[in-house]
Amino acid sequence: MNADVVLSPLLLKEYDFKGKIVVVIDVLRATSTICTALASGARSVVPVLSLEEALSYKAKGYLAGAERDGEKVSGFDFGNSPLEYASDVVNGKDIVLTTTNGTRCIRMSEDADEVLVGSFLNLGVLCEHLKKSQKPVVLFCAGWKGKVNMEDSLYAGAVLDQIEASHASVNDSGEMMVSLYRCVKNELRSYLDHASHARRFRRLGIESDIDYCLRIDAMPVIPVLEGNKLVVYGT
Amino acid sequence: MNADVVLSPLLLKEYDFKGKIVVVIDVLRATSTICTALASGARSVVPVLSLEEALSYKAKGYLAGAERDGEKVSGFDFGNSPLEYASDVVNGKDIVLTTTNGTRCIRMSEDADEVLVGSFLNLGVLCEHLKKSQKPVVLFCAGWKGKVNMEDSLYAGAVLDQIEASHASVNDSGEMMVSLYRCVKNELRSYLDHASHARRFRRLGIESDIDYCLRIDAMPVIPVLEGNKLVVYGT
Repeated sequence: MNADVVLSPLLLKEYDFKGKIVVVIDVLRATSTICTALASGARSVVPVLSLEEALSYKAKGYLAGAERDGEKVSGFDFGNSPLEYASDVVNGKDIVLTTTNGTRCIRMSEDADEVLVGSFLNLGVLCEHLKKSQKPVVLFCAGWKGKVNMEDSLYAGAVLDQIEASHASVNDSGEMMVSLYRCVKNELRSYLDHASHARRFRRLGIESDIDYCLRIDAMPVIPVLEGNKLVVYGT
Repeated sequence: MNADVVLSPLLLKEYDFKGKIVVVIDVLRATSTICTALASGARSVVPVLSLEEALSYKAKGYLAGAERDGEKVSGFDFGNSPLEYASDVVNGKDIVLTTTNGTRCIRMSEDADEVLVGSFLNLGVLCEHLKKSQKPVVLFCAGWKGKVNMEDSLYAGAVLDQIEASHASVNDSGEMMVSLYRCVKNELRSYLDHASHARRFRRLGIESDIDYCLRIDAMPVIPVLEGNKLVVYGT
């Protein structure tokens, strides 16, 4: 089976998701937050594009998360820090979430056979699922406002590294990212200190989120899109 | 000074070329071909977008090169193989060239303070010029029909590796490519055998072009855009 890597939503016009599994990747932080919310017992997470849409869900009783440019939007229950989505707050609840990059990419992937959410928190369980899938895979990196970013690209490389027995990388982006991941994986945390996102997080004083989001296999759930909402796969 | 990397023309909307030096990179093969033609004594190379435009120059007496999808277009003097642009053919001549990717990117860069052409053939002399320039640099990879490709991306990493004393990489694409270049530089030729372009070249039977285009510093000229034509810098 083929595995393809899309490094930014701006590169999307060259890709077709039909018949494929798409893994949406926004490591810092939307897809880490979604994994955390569902692993913490949330019933569902609805990804939406606009603050207005998120507020309409909030009016119906959803807990509502909203982030723009890295910061929580006032009037919402949460921002986009996974640390906010603890089980005592989200267990049994439906959540709506809108973020700068990640939730958009989930919505852009709706043509796929299956839309999954990937982060270092669920790396192993996600890769096991992909290996058994018998379907081509697209690793879709959210980036930052169209720009390629380091943490999402390297995560794509980490997935390719784990699934190489079942899926062959078919584009140069994938070849390069699996090579780079293998070069830096033993110093991943310090390497990611060079990322533009890490610098942004230091400015915002939320560097602890990075340590959290790099906890490999800490949240072994696979969020999957069913209709308009993300739920835990296989439940 | 800052150095930025653009991995594909599709990522361009996030960038502004004003006040900067743009280095256009299409290692296989347009920018290698342009370096070769000028190092072989051609007076100028005019990059154009369409076959029609190239034919109009040919009618005025220019030697004309045209490539689409890796192959020479019939009715033209050359395709896009640098091996065709030998000094006994091009010395003293004006050339017009249109290719699938590289010549378009040169035209897209016209807003820059200075538009240069980069390839492994002129790596050292180009980097010396950039180091002395006191201007921010954008390394603009042509890719293949919008997709990110390995050889252009790695070349951007090679430039960043050489100019780090004068120019700091300011985006994640640059950070990743200089890291990857340092990982694979001792096995660059065999690493590039994994590139999609290398597979395409094997299908087309033009693999010798790859060996040619990876001859580091073999053609120490810097093509620079003056008006609508590329000439040798400093002459």
